[in-house]
Amino acid sequence: MSTFGAIEAGGTKFVCGIASGPEDLIRTTIPTTTPEETMCRAVRFFREHAPVDAIGIASFGPVDLDPRSATFGYITSTPKGAWANYNIVGSAREAMQLPIAFETDVNAAALAESRWGAARGVDDVLYLTVGTGIGGGALAGGRLVHGLAHPEMGHIRVPHELAEDPFPGVCPFHGDCLEGLASGPAMERRWRVKAEELPPDHPAWKLEARYLALGVANFICTLSPKKVLVGGGVLQHADLFPMIRVNLQEILNGYLKLPEVLPPLLGSNSGVLGGIALAERLLAG
Amino acid sequence: MSTFGAIEAGGTKFVCGIASGPEDLIRTTIPTTTPEETMCRAVRFFREHAPVDAIGIASFGPVDLDPRSATFGYITSTPKGAWANYNIVGSAREAMQLPIAFETDVNAAALAESRWGAARGVDDVLYLTVGTGIGGGALAGGRLVHGLAHPEMGHIRVPHELAEDPFPGVCPFHGDCLEGLASGPAMERRWRVKAEELPPDHPAWKLEARYLALGVANFICTLSPKKVLVGGGVLQHADLFPMIRVNLQEILNGYLKLPEVLPPLLGSNSGVLGGIALAERLLAG
Repeated sequence: MSTFGAIEAGGTKFVCGIASGPEDLIRTTIPTTTPEETMCRAVRFFREHAPVDAIGIASFGPVDLDPRSATFGYITSTPKGAWANYNIVGSAREAMQLPIAFETDVNAAALAESRWGAARGVDDVLYLTVGTGIGGGALAGGRLVHGLAHPEMGHIRVPHELAEDPFPGVCPFHGDCLEGLASGPAMERRWRVKAEELPPDHPAWKLEARYLALGVANFICTLSPKKVLVGGGVLQHADLFPMIRVNLQEILNGYLKLPEVLPPLLGSNSGVLGGIALAERLLAG
Repeated sequence: MSTFGAIEAGGTKFVCGIASGPEDLIRTTIPTTTPEETMCRAVRFFREHAPVDAIGIASFGPVDLDPRSATFGYITSTPKGAWANYNIVGSAREAMQLPIAFETDVNAAALAESRWGAARGVDDVLYLTVGTGIGGGALAGGRLVHGLAHPEMGHIRVPHELAEDPFPGVCPFHGDCLEGLASGPAMERRWRVKAEELPPDHPAWKLEARYLALGVANFICTLSPKKVLVGGGVLQHADLFPMIRVNLQEILNGYLKLPEVLPPLLGSNSGVLGGIALAERLLAG
């Protein structure tokens, strides 16, 4: 059996893992500082543990996923200082001399949930995470969805319920895109209290469920997934799932068969296990 | 070289074709009456012409595309009378004794445009048609997108510009979904004149470009296509492309690299050539 390495590269922390699957995962967390220091500590983790056959990197974006591009494997235009235009794949490959797989963190999480989680064995999966931002990954026919670049699902436009919700949204690019209206920071700015401190009967949750359901409805109409997984910090703080499901039924109004809408199963390991699944898939060819 | 057959199955007409590609296409049009009569005339067309090696059916929906389903190859819940729950693939296979490929008309058109048209050689394509309805097909990494069912892109929700446009929309299921706001019948009902009779400087076109750009922006954020093709009757009647492109730039506001947005090249042959491309792909395995 092969052993794989994974790096979940995030803006505030890197999670590194070694595993053949969820049962034998060893993981460590490294704060995200400079690229050199952070990668050096990641490489040290892999060297100190069992040898691995390949490494999967599940990265914050935007990233260049096109193998024919001159900047394949780069984190591209991030505002995170020294990480902009950083060749994370090249750097890992040079240090480790191993095959490196590369994807967005959310696509990797979709793959991990399809391999070992709430969408096990399902080839058409939408994975949405709602926290400090809103990100989406998708598996369509077993392939992770990306093309010119990669999905930026948080930035779709949905109807803004202006009569009830005049809040202009927090997205610096779009104002009231889905992320601008329904991310954790949007809730905090709108209600002047952190999402986790809003009581379960606060009208914030009804509005949140509505916006998330509008987003999910659009993704369903576009991708026709068999399962929809919605996770992230905001989903921890109220019983949003039944409300999202009721809204989805209202919005789509019987026009199409609804997929199951469920929480992901792998929790805070979804990104790092996504890296493991990417590495496994890379070696399987 | 193989020769393929195609059926573009529409609600008002069937277009049947025989070809190895766009250069040698022979086609005929059959009005859509009962399933038995229509299919009988289609089969007669194939029998009277060159023998074909496989047939691709590009069908109006909803259809069952899941080969593991008991109703694979059926047109399912259409309001079009006798066509509901009709086994179009089974019927063609029984009559022709040939391999039959099956897809939605819009997915087939996306494939044809990727094979011979405006997205030739491109594996990540969005194809949108705006006419009596709005339909979308997508190729992602070379695979046509479908999962639980198939995309219903016309039914996504976009911000409804209510101040400027109080029109409630024409979709019987959703009112003001994209199709409800921006299809040909929506334009006709809103302005009380057929879309093709609206002068080029009528404010209708500005609003239409805005709604279509909102839809395209959402599809780009979800699928990240390399090319976006927008065709159909409504696109013939004003110079919508530059207006859609300007709106797209405003809506996405530099957040991501925009794919090219172009008219399709295959025109009224996109569906039937989609059937040809499906048959070709089926035999190529």
